[in-house]
Formats: sequence, structure tokens, C-alpha cells
Amino acid sequence: MTKVNGTAKVEYDPNFTNAVINATGPKADNRMREVMTALIRHVHDFAREVNLTTDEYMAGVSLLNWAGQMSTDRRNEGQLVTDVIGLESLVDEITYKQAAASSSSATPSAILGPFWRHDAPIRKNGESTVLKVPNDAKVSYMYGRLTDAVSGEPLANALVDVWQASTNGLYEQQDEEQPDCNLRGKFYTDEEGNYGFYCLRPTPYPVPSDGPAGKLLDLLDRHHYRPGHVHLIIMKDGYKSITTQIFDRETPYLDNDSVFAVKDGLTVDFTERNDDPKAGWELKYDIAMAPMGSDGAGNVPIATPGAA
Amino acid sequence: MTKVNGTAKVEYDPNFTNAVINATGPKADNRMREVMTALIRHVHDFAREVNLTTDEYMAGVSLLNWAGQMSTDRRNEGQLVTDVIGLESLVDEITYKQAAASSSSATPSAILGPFWRHDAPIRKNGESTVLKVPNDAKVSYMYGRLTDAVSGEPLANALVDVWQASTNGLYEQQDEEQPDCNLRGKFYTDEEGNYGFYCLRPTPYPVPSDGPAGKLLDLLDRHHYRPGHVHLIIMKDGYKSITTQIFDRETPYLDNDSVFAVKDGLTVDFTERNDDPKAGWELKYDIAMAPMGSDGAGNVPIATPGAA
Repeated sequence: MTKVNGTAKVEYDPNFTNAVINATGPKADNRMREVMTALIRHVHDFAREVNLTTDEYMAGVSLLNWAGQMSTDRRNEGQLVTDVIGLESLVDEITYKQAAASSSSATPSAILGPFWRHDAPIRKNGESTVLKVPNDAKVSYMYGRLTDAVSGEPLANALVDVWQASTNGLYEQQDEEQPDCNLRGKFYTDEEGNYGFYCLRPTPYPVPSDGPAGKLLDLLDRHHYRPGHVHLIIMKDGYKSITTQIFDRETPYLDNDSVFAVKDGLTVDFTERNDDPKAGWELKYDIAMAPMGSDGAGNVPIATPGAA
Repeated sequence: MTKVNGTAKVEYDPNFTNAVINATGPKADNRMREVMTALIRHVHDFAREVNLTTDEYMAGVSLLNWAGQMSTDRRNEGQLVTDVIGLESLVDEITYKQAAASSSSATPSAILGPFWRHDAPIRKNGESTVLKVPNDAKVSYMYGRLTDAVSGEPLANALVDVWQASTNGLYEQQDEEQPDCNLRGKFYTDEEGNYGFYCLRPTPYPVPSDGPAGKLLDLLDRHHYRPGHVHLIIMKDGYKSITTQIFDRETPYLDNDSVFAVKDGLTVDFTERNDDPKAGWELKYDIAMAPMGSDGAGNVPIATPGAA
């Protein structure tokens, strides 16, 4: 033990981390080995850097266990905890930039978030996702055209999977007052690549405060709010799938999203819509999809059903 | 994007991690800020270093959620997952070395592990923790003396809380065939600082393979075994508490414990015991406790009931 500026500087076993890393056996998958080696090194460096105590470690374990215990097929609290520290948004950036290396003109991506459902209904173009209109809603018509990011040709029969929270800040699976699959739907583009549906102009909402993600935000003296946004997954055979969110340029919290999902190129402008008794606002949103490259780059991975 | 040796080297937003760190508000506790700042930096560096994909991230989240879902008041699978990557053992080293700075002669510590119970019964010195003797058991008498690590004086009325697995590799709460609180007990030292009880000479066992910790070991091509050991917590007012494990010097897996808990000074020698019809083996184990320093160093934190 040495003293530095009067503070005890404790030295730890310099061989410990390598011993843990080297326990990995010869038959481990190479990528598993690579990922876990880096994870072990960083987690150990973190613990030594802050002199993490047993009590603090146990508090962290309890928080993660609590997240698992709150998670169901309709809610992923573990994911939300990592969202609060920006991990999902960072991984999204990494995945997007790695996979999009063959084309830089495709629509940017954003995190899936914990509220996607794999079983949302297919609806027809022109239909509404708004099964119950809140009093304070700004009903909007969202529409646009899907094209090949390289050739500019329209893409027919592409899937646009959309979901959003209601004006009370809740997704339908969080809210007994909303009909099942309210503010959700899957749409397919027509022969000219066009899609369109009614939705709500999105409003800010807080991430749930009844679990460890909310607790962590409180401990960090941070607000819980996300800027108003609409979630989208776009898929088409032969093209890289897109998982994204679009943000209303006029929404609060655009500069300090509690889960750090706002990125350049994802901000959109809702405008007033005339002569439509069903909607006072509209959003034109065209989407460019990158064709699968010949360089072996695959799909941008999107959610599996387990991520609901 | 730049190319390095033919491999695409993608550059990520250099401001992202600081933006997440700087979201922490002014009222956050200073230690919370310090710990989370380091955690965020290391987790982000890890993700960028390995170019972590969304699929890999989601697999990690699912594994952590699974751990929480398996955890009960009798089993802590989240803790076990972190044990597999050596985190609990490292945090134990950090905590022990930080708190023991005022005395270097105290008994070394080791991890609590996930099988401690706060409600183990108090038993009298000389009694047995072995409520059901397995056919292949080596019943042993463990005894010793507790002393002040500085003065060498005996410590009366100190608590020795002990637990161990049976020869089938299971702790009593994992095994319907074992009586409640088998192989567990709390003992108090007598006026001369002595304690003693019957136990089993410990045998190796695998960490549970039905959950994410076992899955992680398999993915890392590692064995599941722990060397034979006895768990101890020793507490006495005015002294730093000790949470430790002692390892039979002749046990297999002493050099490659699946949770990395073996440390210098924790290995012990069981010897043959003569003229005791109840036990063929014995272990003399004296324990030195460090008095609370005048430097403000507190107890080595031990388990809370939530860590059962």
C-alpha cells in the first residue's frame, strides 16, 4: 500500500482480471470470447477505478434483479435501465454505422425501445391507428413514399410498422383505458411506394417511474421525459431494415431526451392540414432504404419477439 | 469513415458519452455521480471497442432479465452471473483492502455467494450442523479461537455464522431431501474466545446450471465447479466484520474456481481426528479480527437480508 497526497492508495492483485479472462475455454465462440474479454476488462477496471464496495455492488445486483422481475412479454425493464445510461442508443449507432457502410443515404435509425409489440395488426393505407381519440389530441395524417436509397425507385409492398404513446404518456399496453393495439399498426406500401395513416401528433411522456429505470433517473437527479416521437420499423426484402423514431421539431425535451435517442436527421415538421375533417395536422415523411450490399453487410438487426 | 488495413473503421459520435454523463443533475449524491460516471464511460467504451450489435445487446439484456426472474429470497441469480465474471470476488478484494487499511493481520475475506440465509438458527458450541449425514460424508469437527488482531486477546461472544453445501453439491434450500437449515448455524464464542461445531469436510459442487450463470459458463466453455469450501461470517461489536470462505487444501478446483473466490490465506488443512465417534476429521481454524480503526474506517460491509 502506498500513500498518494495523504490518501491511502490500495493496490489490487494485478493478475486477477487476466485469470478471469483466461478461464474462457478453447471451444468458446470467437465473438463470444472477444465480447466477454472486453466486458470483463471494462467491468473490472470500473470497479477498481471507483473502489466499488460490496454494499454498492449488492445495490447494483438488486437493481438488475428488480428489472428482471418487472419484465414481462409486454414490458422490458432491463432494456429501459440500459436506455437510461444511453447504451441502447449507442449500440444502435454502432449497429447502424457498421451495417450502413455500403450506403450513406439511407434513413438514420434509432432505438427500438421497450414498447414494441410483434403482434400489432395489419391495417390498410388511409386507415387510422387512433382507436380512441383523447380530448387533447392533435390527430395527424402521416404519409410518404419509400424508395431505393441508391436508385431512387419506389419500393412497393414494404412494411411500415408504427407505434406511439397516447397524450397521457402511456402506450396501450400500459393503460387499461386504451383499446388493444391502439396507436399501433402495420402498413404496406402500394405500387408507387406510398403509405399513409392517421396517428397523433406525438407528445412528451415520462419513462415509467415504478421500476428501477425511474429509480435510477431519480438517483441521478434527472427528469424522466422523452420528447414527443413516433416509432417506426421499415422492412423490405433485399433491403436493410430500419428501426427508427421520428421527433417533432417543436416538442419539449428534444435536447435532453431521458434515453438519448434523438439524432440528426430524425427531426420532422408537422404542418397544418386543410380540408380533412379527420385531422388538423399532417406529416410527410419519405423513407430511403439501403439495398443489401455486395460487401456481405447484413440487415440492421431489429427486434426479436422476446424484445417486446 | 476511414479504412485501416482494409477493415472499415467506423467513427462514432465523440460527444455522446459526455452528453450522457452530463445529464446527471446537480442534486445527485456525489458518490452516485462518481460511480455512474465511471460505469457509463466503461460500458460505452466496451460497446465501441467490440462494435456491439443490437442483437448482442438484446441477448445481454435478456440474460440479465432472466437472472432477475429466477431470483427469489432464497436464490440470487443476478449475483451468480456477476460471480462468473469475477466481479463479486474483485469487489470483495477492494472492500477488504480499503477497510482493512488500519490492520493487515486480520483474517482475509471472500465473497458472500448467493446461498447465505439471514434466518439460520443459533446453535450451541459443540453441536452439529449436520442434520442428515450423507453416506459419502466425511463428518468433521471445526473449532478455533477468535482473537483481537492487534492485542491477541480472546474475543468472547463473537458470532460465527457458517454454511456449506452437502456432498451432493446442493445447499439445503436447493434440495428437498435436506432438512431446513441443514449444514448451517450461528455460534457464539465462549469466554475464552473458543467456538466449535460439527460440519462436513467440504466437497466440490457445480454452480446451478438451470439459469443464466450456468448458460454463461457454457458459452465461455468453462466448467461449473467450485472447490470444496465452508462459508463464514464473523461479527463482533467494535471489530470489522469478516465474510469469508475457507478452502480444503486437498480439494479439486482449487486453482480454477468457477467464481474466482480462492485467495491466499484462505486454504486450510483438515486432519484425521482420533477418539471421536462422531467425526473422523477435524479442522482447527483460528480467526483474528481487526478492531475498528480510529481512522474512520468502518465495517467491511457484509450481506443484507436481500442478498440471501
